[in-house]
Formats: sequence, C-alpha cells, structure tokens
Amino acid sequence: MHSFDRRPLGVFDSGVGGLTVLRSLRARLPSESIIYLGDTARVPYGTKSASVVTRYAQLNAAFLTSLDVKLLVVACNTASAVALPALRATLGIPVVGVIEPGAQEAAALTRSGVVGVLGTPGTIRSGAYQRALGAARSGLTVLAQACPLFVPLAEEGWLGGDVPRLVARSYLSPLLGQGMDTVVLGCTHYPLLRGVLQEVLGQKMALVDSGEAAAQAVAAVFQAGTASEAGPGTRTERFYVTDVPDRFIEVSARFLGSSVPAAEQVDLAVG
Amino acid sequence: MHSFDRRPLGVFDSGVGGLTVLRSLRARLPSESIIYLGDTARVPYGTKSASVVTRYAQLNAAFLTSLDVKLLVVACNTASAVALPALRATLGIPVVGVIEPGAQEAAALTRSGVVGVLGTPGTIRSGAYQRALGAARSGLTVLAQACPLFVPLAEEGWLGGDVPRLVARSYLSPLLGQGMDTVVLGCTHYPLLRGVLQEVLGQKMALVDSGEAAAQAVAAVFQAGTASEAGPGTRTERFYVTDVPDRFIEVSARFLGSSVPAAEQVDLAVG
Repeated sequence: MHSFDRRPLGVFDSGVGGLTVLRSLRARLPSESIIYLGDTARVPYGTKSASVVTRYAQLNAAFLTSLDVKLLVVACNTASAVALPALRATLGIPVVGVIEPGAQEAAALTRSGVVGVLGTPGTIRSGAYQRALGAARSGLTVLAQACPLFVPLAEEGWLGGDVPRLVARSYLSPLLGQGMDTVVLGCTHYPLLRGVLQEVLGQKMALVDSGEAAAQAVAAVFQAGTASEAGPGTRTERFYVTDVPDRFIEVSARFLGSSVPAAEQVDLAVG
Repeated sequence: MHSFDRRPLGVFDSGVGGLTVLRSLRARLPSESIIYLGDTARVPYGTKSASVVTRYAQLNAAFLTSLDVKLLVVACNTASAVALPALRATLGIPVVGVIEPGAQEAAALTRSGVVGVLGTPGTIRSGAYQRALGAARSGLTVLAQACPLFVPLAEEGWLGGDVPRLVARSYLSPLLGQGMDTVVLGCTHYPLLRGVLQEVLGQKMALVDSGEAAAQAVAAVFQAGTASEAGPGTRTERFYVTDVPDRFIEVSARFLGSSVPAAEQVDLAVG
C-alpha cells in the first residue's frame, strides 16, 4: 500500500452479522471507503463444515479482490477460524480476521486468567480461539461454549425477554463458578444479545466484542509502515449480497444502527 | 413407468428435515428403493429467496435424475412452495411436493373451515399453502404464520420445555380464538415439535403432517395407472449430502427414528 491509497477496504461475512464490524470500522477509520459482501445465499456458516466454509470464503475473497480492495477483513468468526490460512496463502493483500484481535484483547483484560469464549459450533470446534488465547498469553484457562441458537435469535430480533434469557442461561450456566472474568463474544451476531449476556454472566464480567477488536487491528495496520489513510471527504460504501437484498436491507439497521441504503445482488458461482 | 420398475424414488430436502418424509415413505411403500439428498452445504432454505431456492432445487433435481430415479419427491416445504412449477416443466418424471397433499388433507379434515398453516418465512411468503387450500375447498379461512425459530430449535434438539413452549406461544397466540380446528405443519422439521404445538394449540386441534400427506400422495401415484412397485426384497436406501456427513448422520435419528448408517458427500456445483 502506498500513501493516500484510496482503494477501499473489503469486508465479507456470511450475511448481515458483519455489519457490526463495519460499524466499528466506520468509527475507527472514518476516511476509508468500504465494500461489504454478505453471502446471504449460503448463510449461516456457523453450522457448516470447515471445508465448505473455506470454499465459500475463497469465493467471497475472489469477488472482493476483483474490485481492487487494498485489505480484506474477514468479519465472520467462523470463516476467520477455519479459512484464514488459505486466504493469506493466496491473496496478495493483508487479511485481518476477528479471532486473533478478540483473543489478544481478552488475554490483556483478564485478571483471573480464566476466559470464556462463545461462538458458533464451527468456530468452537475449530479450536481457533483456544489456540489464539494460548498464543497471546500462556497459562490461560479457556472455557469454550458453542451457542448455536444465538444466531437465529439475533437474526429474528429476539434480543431480550424470557426466551433469549433462558437460552443464554442454558448455554452459560456450565461456565459459571470457575473464576471466569472475561468472555469473548466470538460471533458478530452476539453483540446484539449483549444485554441478556451481561445479565446472565453478571455485571462485572468483561465482554469482548471481537468485531470491535478487529477494527482496532485494521486501524493498527494503517498506522504501521507504509500504509496510510485515503484522502478524507471522498469516502464511499458499497454493499453486495448473494441473495435478493430485501431482507438484508430490512434487518441491517439492527446491526448497523441505521439501514443500508441499497445492496446489489451478485452471483459468485453456479449454485 | 412400467410394471415392476425397480428404479429408486428420489427425495431431496435442504438438509435433515426431509428424513421425516423418508420415514413416512418407508412405511407407505416398503418395497421401494430410495435415494435421499440433503443439501446441507446450503441449508436452510426457509429464510432464503424464491429465486435462490429454485436454483438450488434445480441442482438437487439434476443430481437425482442423473441417478435414474423414477419419481422425485420434493420433501422440503419451502422448495415445494417456490420451485415445483420449474421442476415439473423440466423433468420428465412425476414430481410430488409436500404442499398440495398437506393442503388437501387439511381441507378434508376441517369442520370449522378455519385452517392454520405454520411454515418458514419463504413458504408463508410464497402464498403456496393459501392457494392450495383455496383450490382444495372454496370458502376456507386460512391463518398463515411464519415460525422462523422452529427450524433451529428442532435442529438443535430443543423439542420440549420452556423455550420451545414460549416461542410457540409467541407465534401461535395470534391465531387462537378464531375458530381454527386444523393446523398444517408446513415444514418437515415441525413434527419434532408436535408435543409442544399440541399443548399450545389444545389437544383437540388436528395437526396435519405435510410429509406424511406427501407419502400418501406418492403411494397414490404408484397405485394409479401404469405405475407399480419394485420387486419386494430388493429394497435399498442411499444417502447423499452436500457438506461433510458427520452432523447429518449425528442428528438423523431424531428425524428418522434410527440413524442413517452412512452418507456420501457430493459437490453439486462450484460454490
């Protein structure tokens, strides 16, 4: 990257969840243009296998690099957990995932040395957070819990009340009473359930938003070395989806704070 | 089809839910061989658009017809709701969906003339049940309700207790008090929640399993005209999936009564 590189950042997610990461990127890097791709024709990734998710991630990355992005943000925890090595090996641009930044922030925050990780079945099964936490700080105890119902609850807008509270209690009760003081929200949908999670985990529990941590990591790339921000005042955002955009636009406000104005449908491959 | 046509039936679904239909087909047609395809790499269909679901249905149908099936059962309500005309127009074999049989059974059962339909957002939005009920019997009142959380609840095994009961009450309460006496379970996952649904809807409510109705319709095709059963004693079953088979096999018992012994992964298309 050269000085005042006006090329956009590329961001992809399995669907709408990565908009929470986009929101953090906007706040951290207010001069950067962004192209966002939501793979809504194949959502969700979290219940699918590593091989299938890697294939989808490569299709998404190929689309975004064809639009000349200067850096790729993998805003989906499941894709970050399983596809990052494959993407880094084949793309000629920096690739930032959400796992390492979230793990590093949690490792820095914990005082008890006991960290919880909540994620999709694919993310937890991959062991990526467990490895990243171990690399960030030795001697940590990691309590990992797959929470498969949190994504549909967040997508459908069940963010408070008895149902999300009972589901959260069911997933989280086994983690309590073991000295845990920090919990990574290892899925971009989970910040929408922050209120319920804080209630069930207790008000003193530190909650780490992996998407917010990733946005900090992207900002660090731009501050380091030769990278530099695009010229201010020329910032643009474009949104692409792989299914019809109606529902993506409809639920975008819940994740982004305000609705996406428009999104264009693209076919990444037959099927 | 000619007499003693030993070619198998083809059955496809977005994933594991169609195994409830397979179970009914086994019971109704104990001599027929069956090839089942679960599109687990792209599950679920119920929250995706009609155009994307139709494309996936065509890929599934092309795979099964390449294996020389004599009849195609579309075991997925969402695919039946949106893709049946396209499949019937292009395939040279009988195509049986789950919507018309379920609607016809409900129309025959209701005494009050008020029928409820529960389905995925895609099925309800399509209006297919509403049209099929109107065609089956004029003057029916149809109360249609999308229940998007039922699929993840059934997939994750939350089949009883407070969470499914509260979710069911939230979806179904608006339908009560309007004279409804019959409800179509318009998604192959919903029979797993039958206990909770019966409790919330009342013990007198007639529940129609659309998959069971479809199995009856397939049996009728074989009894009519030139169709005939395969020779007995030579029955086989084969299972294909589009993602790795582990989870499909793991949860199959919940839908089928006993586990699928093995399933082979196939790539239907790039992506």
